Amino acid sequence: MASTDFMTSWREVEQIGATEAGGVERQAGTEEDRQVREWFRAFAERRGWRTTVDGIGNLFALIDFNPGAPYILVGSHLDSQPRGGRFDGAYGVMAGLHAAERVQQHFTDLGVSPRYNLAVVDWFNEEGGRFAPSIMGSSVYAGLKDRDEMLDRTDLAGVTVRNALESIGYLGGDEPPTAAGYVEIHIEQGRILEREGIPLGAVDSSWYTQKLDVEILGEQSHTGATLMEDRRDALYAASYVIIAFNEITRDYPPESLVSSVGQIVVEPNSPIVVNRRVHLVGDLRANDPAIVQDARNRLVARCAELAESHDVQIIVQDFDIRPNLYFPEEGVELVGKVATDLGIGIRRMQTMAGHDSIAMNTVAPTVMMFIPSIDGVSHCERELTLEQDMLTGVDALQGVLARMLDGVLDGVEPAPRY
Amino acid sequence: MASTDFMTSWREVEQIGATEAGGVERQAGTEEDRQVREWFRAFAERRGWRTTVDGIGNLFALIDFNPGAPYILVGSHLDSQPRGGRFDGAYGVMAGLHAAERVQQHFTDLGVSPRYNLAVVDWFNEEGGRFAPSIMGSSVYAGLKDRDEMLDRTDLAGVTVRNALESIGYLGGDEPPTAAGYVEIHIEQGRILEREGIPLGAVDSSWYTQKLDVEILGEQSHTGATLMEDRRDALYAASYVIIAFNEITRDYPPESLVSSVGQIVVEPNSPIVVNRRVHLVGDLRANDPAIVQDARNRLVARCAELAESHDVQIIVQDFDIRPNLYFPEEGVELVGKVATDLGIGIRRMQTMAGHDSIAMNTVAPTVMMFIPSIDGVSHCERELTLEQDMLTGVDALQGVLARMLDGVLDGVEPAPRY
Repeated sequence: MASTDFMTSWREVEQIGATEAGGVERQAGTEEDRQVREWFRAFAERRGWRTTVDGIGNLFALIDFNPGAPYILVGSHLDSQPRGGRFDGAYGVMAGLHAAERVQQHFTDLGVSPRYNLAVVDWFNEEGGRFAPSIMGSSVYAGLKDRDEMLDRTDLAGVTVRNALESIGYLGGDEPPTAAGYVEIHIEQGRILEREGIPLGAVDSSWYTQKLDVEILGEQSHTGATLMEDRRDALYAASYVIIAFNEITRDYPPESLVSSVGQIVVEPNSPIVVNRRVHLVGDLRANDPAIVQDARNRLVARCAELAESHDVQIIVQDFDIRPNLYFPEEGVELVGKVATDLGIGIRRMQTMAGHDSIAMNTVAPTVMMFIPSIDGVSHCERELTLEQDMLTGVDALQGVLARMLDGVLDGVEPAPRY
Repeated sequence: MASTDFMTSWREVEQIGATEAGGVERQAGTEEDRQVREWFRAFAERRGWRTTVDGIGNLFALIDFNPGAPYILVGSHLDSQPRGGRFDGAYGVMAGLHAAERVQQHFTDLGVSPRYNLAVVDWFNEEGGRFAPSIMGSSVYAGLKDRDEMLDRTDLAGVTVRNALESIGYLGGDEPPTAAGYVEIHIEQGRILEREGIPLGAVDSSWYTQKLDVEILGEQSHTGATLMEDRRDALYAASYVIIAFNEITRDYPPESLVSSVGQIVVEPNSPIVVNRRVHLVGDLRANDPAIVQDARNRLVARCAELAESHDVQIIVQDFDIRPNLYFPEEGVELVGKVATDLGIGIRRMQTMAGHDSIAMNTVAPTVMMFIPSIDGVSHCERELTLEQDMLTGVDALQGVLARMLDGVLDGVEPAPRY
């Protein structure tokens, strides 16, 4: 068995897909995704761990203590946003690999086997930047999304998930390990821990989120020769839609609702043509479902008004609705105990962002932890977490993992499926 | 020498790159562009005309009456917008080919040679939908744009003009014919001729036009986890810029200024990421240069305000400024005489759209004619001109061409270079 300290591994992985400005670009199913997966496999194989790949590209490293027993899964995702940060997802997988190695050593030293087996996982396409929806691999694992439907999803260039996975050699056929529990550690992507000077968060719930798919259909015409009053400009109308998605947040208490348009496709997108079609995706999130639902209804009404006033057609569809989800109280308490043992501060918190743990929480008892993010920034190259905070997180993950392998969360019911 | 009637040729060419909704898609340097050029060459070669291709992909069919004499050029462009119309450009080339055939027959029947030779031309990349700027081939011919610089221009996928032309076999090396005059006929792309029931327009001038290149730089972040007040959303700010480009037209007399944003590039354009960068192109046109300049100044000021209020950087650059350009009065009068001979109505008019004739007018005496467009729509699949109007246009073009070959516009000064 090889042993490497966490920061040595970290410095290797942050080179894969590194960008000039200090981020990484490892979008799902790309060459950089393949390279980081090869790194993960080599790490596992050097330690004698088996690796398997399931039918949606989830990659597992398996440590078997009790042949035939189910597994405690630990991990996150190694894919990134375009010009994303080094920490989002990657930290959780790397912490998982190193915590697993230490926990294996711990049980070997004790000469005992824990109740469950252990699997470290790199979930496929958590980011959803190239292929929508996000949290794809873990959602298929959890039975929340249909595998064949996800394999048929395409990126903006028309490449399917199936083809992308085949092209990097990661469309597997292995049966994934059965989960007796799941634990994930992630950067906060917010400022609460940093502001309060607390190194660890125990996530007790997630915000209610939904997306709106908006299609605006006008008429293509000449930017020079068409009278202004004859234009049915899809991009002009879309600009009001984008503004509405942003400014509707002002109608609710400050920061109780966040909303943005992230993706937009414009056709024909030629400098001297009035655009005929815009397709965009808006993203609404609040802790209170009533706020998201009220904002959604008002945006739908606003789109109807804009369709009328701009003489265009606007089609709005709900998708990717994710209710509030509560992580088990027993898991939150477990994180508290581990923090006490380590002598570190801790606080409860919510997650506004989606994570693989949200899908896994519907399958098995799930624990979700956060470590601080400098300035709270994420999905960007200047994402940063301090080395000390990363190391503290690995310690905490090790403690939680060892207790979960011993069955401390047995009997806890998973959350309802959404 | 073969002979084909105009509508037979027309029905062949409108099949090349035909779209389901009745338009064509033959963007510059694509396979469809290659096919339509092959059609042009075959038409010329069946009539014993030489064809040549210059260093920016302009395609010429040469009819030599007087070896060594300069040429009267007639033509337009066979490339189209994405999902464009069948008539824009293609009509002028097809009318040129058929008028040239008839004029050649006319001089053969008379047993005399005219003063000049005759060349039909398909200018490369008039549309500019794939490669900016538009009017590329004729602008290089006219010395208004540098050939090497244009060959280095790229499309949104990073393909250069040079590579696109090479890949379709149309990066030529022939010396282009020297122009003693140029004549072009085009669909109006407006409603004036249709509304007044007049079959022919003599264009006396073009509108003042300019484009503005706008780059908006914010900061990439997470759509879920970033506080609204921390976002520096480039797409949200860009929406106000797009609206400003449109609504500034309301500050001037109705339809005295037209303005739109046609092209927009968004980065990273991922559903759950606040966008860091938007690059867009706005297009301003008016007959009165003072209106364009005033609107341009106010848009620059508005962008500065938006940069401040949205905490983003906005960089605005002028490009593709085209002054009012006046076609020679002698040419307008010539079209009037031809119309009288044919017994058809005619009116003077302006062009709001750019055309190859605007570049050619700086090189040699240039005549520009319009035929009606149903509903005035253009750069779209439902672009339509009636068969009778197309045939009348060929007759008019034949009359103008025959007289120009005999030197009727000799001594007319070209317009100043811009």
